[in-house]
Amino acid sequence: MASIAIIGTGAVGGYYGARLAKAGHDVRFLARSDYRAISESGLDIRSHEGDFQLRPASVFRSAAEIGVVDWVICALKTTSLDQAPALIAPCAGPATRVLALMNGLGIEERLAAYFDRRRIFGAMAFVCINRTGPGVIHHLKYGRLSIGHLDDDPAETTALAELLRGANLDVVTAPNLRWARWDKLCWNIPFNGLSVAAGGIGTEAITGDDLLRGTAERAMREVVSLGNADLAAAGSPDRLETAEVVARMFSLTDTMGNYHTSMALDYAQARPLEVETILGEPSRRAAALGVHVPTIDALYTLVHAADLRRRSIIPSVGDGNGGQ
Amino acid sequence: MASIAIIGTGAVGGYYGARLAKAGHDVRFLARSDYRAISESGLDIRSHEGDFQLRPASVFRSAAEIGVVDWVICALKTTSLDQAPALIAPCAGPATRVLALMNGLGIEERLAAYFDRRRIFGAMAFVCINRTGPGVIHHLKYGRLSIGHLDDDPAETTALAELLRGANLDVVTAPNLRWARWDKLCWNIPFNGLSVAAGGIGTEAITGDDLLRGTAERAMREVVSLGNADLAAAGSPDRLETAEVVARMFSLTDTMGNYHTSMALDYAQARPLEVETILGEPSRRAAALGVHVPTIDALYTLVHAADLRRRSIIPSVGDGNGGQ
Repeated sequence: MASIAIIGTGAVGGYYGARLAKAGHDVRFLARSDYRAISESGLDIRSHEGDFQLRPASVFRSAAEIGVVDWVICALKTTSLDQAPALIAPCAGPATRVLALMNGLGIEERLAAYFDRRRIFGAMAFVCINRTGPGVIHHLKYGRLSIGHLDDDPAETTALAELLRGANLDVVTAPNLRWARWDKLCWNIPFNGLSVAAGGIGTEAITGDDLLRGTAERAMREVVSLGNADLAAAGSPDRLETAEVVARMFSLTDTMGNYHTSMALDYAQARPLEVETILGEPSRRAAALGVHVPTIDALYTLVHAADLRRRSIIPSVGDGNGGQ
Repeated sequence: MASIAIIGTGAVGGYYGARLAKAGHDVRFLARSDYRAISESGLDIRSHEGDFQLRPASVFRSAAEIGVVDWVICALKTTSLDQAPALIAPCAGPATRVLALMNGLGIEERLAAYFDRRRIFGAMAFVCINRTGPGVIHHLKYGRLSIGHLDDDPAETTALAELLRGANLDVVTAPNLRWARWDKLCWNIPFNGLSVAAGGIGTEAITGDDLLRGTAERAMREVVSLGNADLAAAGSPDRLETAEVVARMFSLTDTMGNYHTSMALDYAQARPLEVETILGEPSRRAAALGVHVPTIDALYTLVHAADLRRRSIIPSVGDGNGGQ
């Protein structure tokens, strides 16, 4: 059994950590706002695959108290990405493996500036999950983890897959983590981006309107072009295939019902938006590679503006001067 | 002195109509919601160039009561453009000239399907003006009219210029109405579009943020390309020049303070948005001409989405299912 630190006990960290603890691992949760509730009552998982409680849960207020573990699973929102190295460091010894279970681009590369890149992994959760109260997590749909190793080492990828599959989790191993990140962005950029840029709307509003659907597809095609340029620049032979990606992503979305993206939920609840890792980093990557991605740039700009409004950096227009 | 029907007594129609009436013309206003106030108290113009009252004002509930006039000035919001021909028709005899004093693209062409194109004119108001109550209009800044004739007939353009200049209005005559429409769109598409797509913000929020300013400039460059393709397709030798347009539009905007676009004010007050004439028609023109305008398309999509939300066709996301 492995010792595992969960850095960030939100819905995703709490759920996957609880699944690993249920499988017998020594899972230690780092929690801030929910520390008291979890230390008193554990974690309460309400899942369409079966409810369970993790009680007691091993929960800590600081990473230093957690100590060095075999695995660190970083499940922070990427709006806290700057804090990740300092939170991971106290848990990381020479043999510790670090898994970034987060959305977006460029995350493992940033961790590699602090930790041994041979022990850095990435995972993307395809899961419909919400924290509905302190220590209470509702798991509504899906749950698959797409995982990979920063340098695509097959033996390392297998080690992570075995850990997760031992907890009966649904795991897909990416032979190419970079490809897998771009593949996920083919969904996240159009759907997270439009769901907020259009003012906080669900996926059915996007797929059911010709203009919104067309803009989603244009954004997706730009992600494919950009991802392929990035893969080529990294010397990878793998590519995304436009028609296959477009068909698969819209087909996937059509099975979701009126899904609310994580970013649309953050927007509706006035929480920080994961704008930089999902949209900003791809937009900057495009500029660096000389790839023209005007739809992505527009979505980045408008989600960024939504975040500025949330922070009251941009005032909203009420009645006032104008007219042109 | 001329007889003039003002179709649509909002801020723009009311102000310019009152100026013409003050100059001695027989101006007849068509009003709906403000009919009673205007018939009882006339029009109250509060202008930085000097306040004045038009009392009594000749105001009518229906175009049929107005009868045939020398000039029809149509100052409807373009969200009511479909109603324009039926409202103009009762006032239009064989010699009547029709001026579309409205924002956007394709307006004169639509009127030419109903009226003699040799008597159709267009005008764009560069004015900061608000209706602040029934029959009460605040004129805050600017006021210049850019005018032209649908077929660019110089004698006709001169006739309109003389009418307006006789009322001491600031008039610029466009030798090419199509060019003038595109030139105005170089401001309206980026600034009206972004002001709403970014959630209802002022011009300083756009010009003061690198991402928003960059997106405004990209949209503007697309308008120049599209406008030039449209001018070429129409056989016009006139062109917009990118660097000159970009410098002039940003310089103009910097003098405005934190200007609230007409579309941002409509958005803030949950009124219909002039999305189709300002963004939709240019987007469709681009598709017809095979010009790639992804930033314009994205702005069109997102302002369209804002209008759908206003009409509750798209529900907003509250708390709910989601997470990916």
